[in-house]
Amino acid sequence: MTDIERDVRGVAERAKDAAADLAPLNRAVKDGALLAAADALVERAEEIVKANAEDVARARENGTSEAMIDRLTLTTERIAAIADAVREVAELPDPVGEVIRGKTLPNGLELRQIRVPLGVIGIIYEGRPNVTVDAAALCLKSGNAALLRGSSSAYSSNTVIVDVLRGALEGTEVPADAVQLVPGAGRESAQALMRARGLVDVLIPRGGGSLIQTVVNESTVPVIETGEGNCHVYVDEAADLDKALAIAVNAKTQRCSVCNTAETLLVHAGIAERFLPPLLTSLRDLGVTVHGDDRVRPFDDAVVPATEADWTTEYLSLDLAVKVVDSLDDAVAHIREYSTAHTEAIVTDSQSAARRFVSRVDSAAVMVNASTRFTDGGEFGFGAEIGISTQKLHARGPMGLPEMTSTKYVVTGDGHVR
Amino acid sequence: MTDIERDVRGVAERAKDAAADLAPLNRAVKDGALLAAADALVERAEEIVKANAEDVARARENGTSEAMIDRLTLTTERIAAIADAVREVAELPDPVGEVIRGKTLPNGLELRQIRVPLGVIGIIYEGRPNVTVDAAALCLKSGNAALLRGSSSAYSSNTVIVDVLRGALEGTEVPADAVQLVPGAGRESAQALMRARGLVDVLIPRGGGSLIQTVVNESTVPVIETGEGNCHVYVDEAADLDKALAIAVNAKTQRCSVCNTAETLLVHAGIAERFLPPLLTSLRDLGVTVHGDDRVRPFDDAVVPATEADWTTEYLSLDLAVKVVDSLDDAVAHIREYSTAHTEAIVTDSQSAARRFVSRVDSAAVMVNASTRFTDGGEFGFGAEIGISTQKLHARGPMGLPEMTSTKYVVTGDGHVR
Repeated sequence: MTDIERDVRGVAERAKDAAADLAPLNRAVKDGALLAAADALVERAEEIVKANAEDVARARENGTSEAMIDRLTLTTERIAAIADAVREVAELPDPVGEVIRGKTLPNGLELRQIRVPLGVIGIIYEGRPNVTVDAAALCLKSGNAALLRGSSSAYSSNTVIVDVLRGALEGTEVPADAVQLVPGAGRESAQALMRARGLVDVLIPRGGGSLIQTVVNESTVPVIETGEGNCHVYVDEAADLDKALAIAVNAKTQRCSVCNTAETLLVHAGIAERFLPPLLTSLRDLGVTVHGDDRVRPFDDAVVPATEADWTTEYLSLDLAVKVVDSLDDAVAHIREYSTAHTEAIVTDSQSAARRFVSRVDSAAVMVNASTRFTDGGEFGFGAEIGISTQKLHARGPMGLPEMTSTKYVVTGDGHVR
Repeated sequence: MTDIERDVRGVAERAKDAAADLAPLNRAVKDGALLAAADALVERAEEIVKANAEDVARARENGTSEAMIDRLTLTTERIAAIADAVREVAELPDPVGEVIRGKTLPNGLELRQIRVPLGVIGIIYEGRPNVTVDAAALCLKSGNAALLRGSSSAYSSNTVIVDVLRGALEGTEVPADAVQLVPGAGRESAQALMRARGLVDVLIPRGGGSLIQTVVNESTVPVIETGEGNCHVYVDEAADLDKALAIAVNAKTQRCSVCNTAETLLVHAGIAERFLPPLLTSLRDLGVTVHGDDRVRPFDDAVVPATEADWTTEYLSLDLAVKVVDSLDDAVAHIREYSTAHTEAIVTDSQSAARRFVSRVDSAAVMVNASTRFTDGGEFGFGAEIGISTQKLHARGPMGLPEMTSTKYVVTGDGHVR
């Protein structure tokens, strides 16, 4: 075992102990700790900004893009907003202790299925230091210890932020070890975390596709896959074309860098001649590069020929793959082959078409006459999300606080035997 | 890729296609298929018995124990009982299509979270050929394609049983490829199944601890751990000793070969002198070998000294480890260290003791004044179970049909954009 492995297992063991103490704490205690953490972030904002400046300077030296530097940068205003988000988490209902099912069995045994924390949640994430606070707050509220493994590019910021959070916990009943930074910023520390099965209950990678695939392939700790979104909009033959245009444009352009933006548009052949000309004009005006198949290109010279790679790509940019399909079933078949099963939308006025699309498309969210951009914990009314799960086990779609819990059966008798 | 790997991936691909066709089928179609399968098992019972005789003969040649041979053996009566169990699965409610959550969002979007099948479920199991039918029936009812990978010792039986089931499906809308035996009975075929990520949605190992550990460690497909049960009964200082005696004896002896039987008894020091003498006498009369610590052995010469290994062993036999503890918290600490987090019981008349035990013990089921033997899908009223999950993600405790599903968000709008 290397030093880094030993260090990572050390923090994981302390996290496991902290999780045992954290699990039975009631809401008032946890909310008090969250509010103390929010206050401490504001009080010590200057320290955080100073540490962040080191990260930003290093990023600039390394030639990081301005967009990435903007994501990395913290100001006192941004820290105040992050602290407000923590206060909002405090206001959310506590999922722990909720009785999901309960009944009295024929023999008189009283059966209850109760939400309990998962235990220790490891979060592996990329550049944005606000994730450090968000993830810690959501874990704490749901009674879980957080092991935070951020990017090396934000290591100075994260170190101070976690120090601030732990300092705030020290005045409360919540053990400080419920929030810990995983030591080391290299590949080895992430790998040690992925191998800490038995100490860490679940790993949630937050970031780009390659990060997620690495964690999924290398982790022996159970993983919840999040966020990869090759999302589709299918415009059916029976679509209201005004709505279809608005939805397609919104799904691509309203915020193109996020996982629920549309990457491929499928257009039914029966309405292609009426729909594609105005659509392609709108997209061109908004700066979108369209990658079209043979049946799309004749409508606009600016359309770039689509290759096989375009159907699989999560652009996260102002690019859109467009394909003409002969039927709803062909659209479904395309989606089943290429989608990451995050979000797909159909635009149609046909009840039977909507019903068939919804039942055949196997994705975390299926939209009928609505933009893919609505797949979001905030939009769904969950208050906050730790990520959007694109897997089928445990949680699927936006993961709020209830998805950060497990359950326990409590069975009460009076000397019952079989 | 070896021939076996290619064959296993081939059946997995067909299972994935079958799962897509199976998912939208309604309950009447699935129940019809289950009843046809039950009838076919009875009609072709003699074929099955004949194939089973080959497995039994081979087992005898290999010197298999009579207990194992009994588990392996099928008779026309046993097949009739297995067919009846399939008919009972048909009578259970269909979990697919259940709306778990639903609301109209402030912007008018209609949000529903709906149960959908997981897709393709791989089951890796040991000797008993009845599991082939049970698992197939539960998968089919919950809309999932089943990839069955039984033991080589039951390969002839399983081959004919799956042929019978597939034959029955051919007269229905359910695709025959929804039920398939994984080809090959060697280690390589199991490994190929464990590596079929992207084709298989979840693997459920059913069997002993070493089988489960192998699957957990080697699988890249998500796994649900089932069944390993190092279960504890803690007799508190405030226990009603008659109830404690009945529960301890029942938990150990009513059926000692199953996962929810008790393996360790923890006795509070304050009642040890009154409780242990009658308990040890009862256990001895029932043929139980007690492995006791230093504070247990003085009460009975027949007590064998307990070693560290006894605290970790799932005996599945008439053996019981017994330890005297000084407090409820010591009992909880022992459980947290050694338990497999399946089921633990406390016997106490103290509300505060029960409350503390329930909140501190982190197991799938916690019993208060009831035998550990009640952790069971049938006892809980779930009708049937695919296994008892001892992990925290996705499902915990007895897994009925709802635990064999995922969910999908369906969001309906009228041209909604952000």
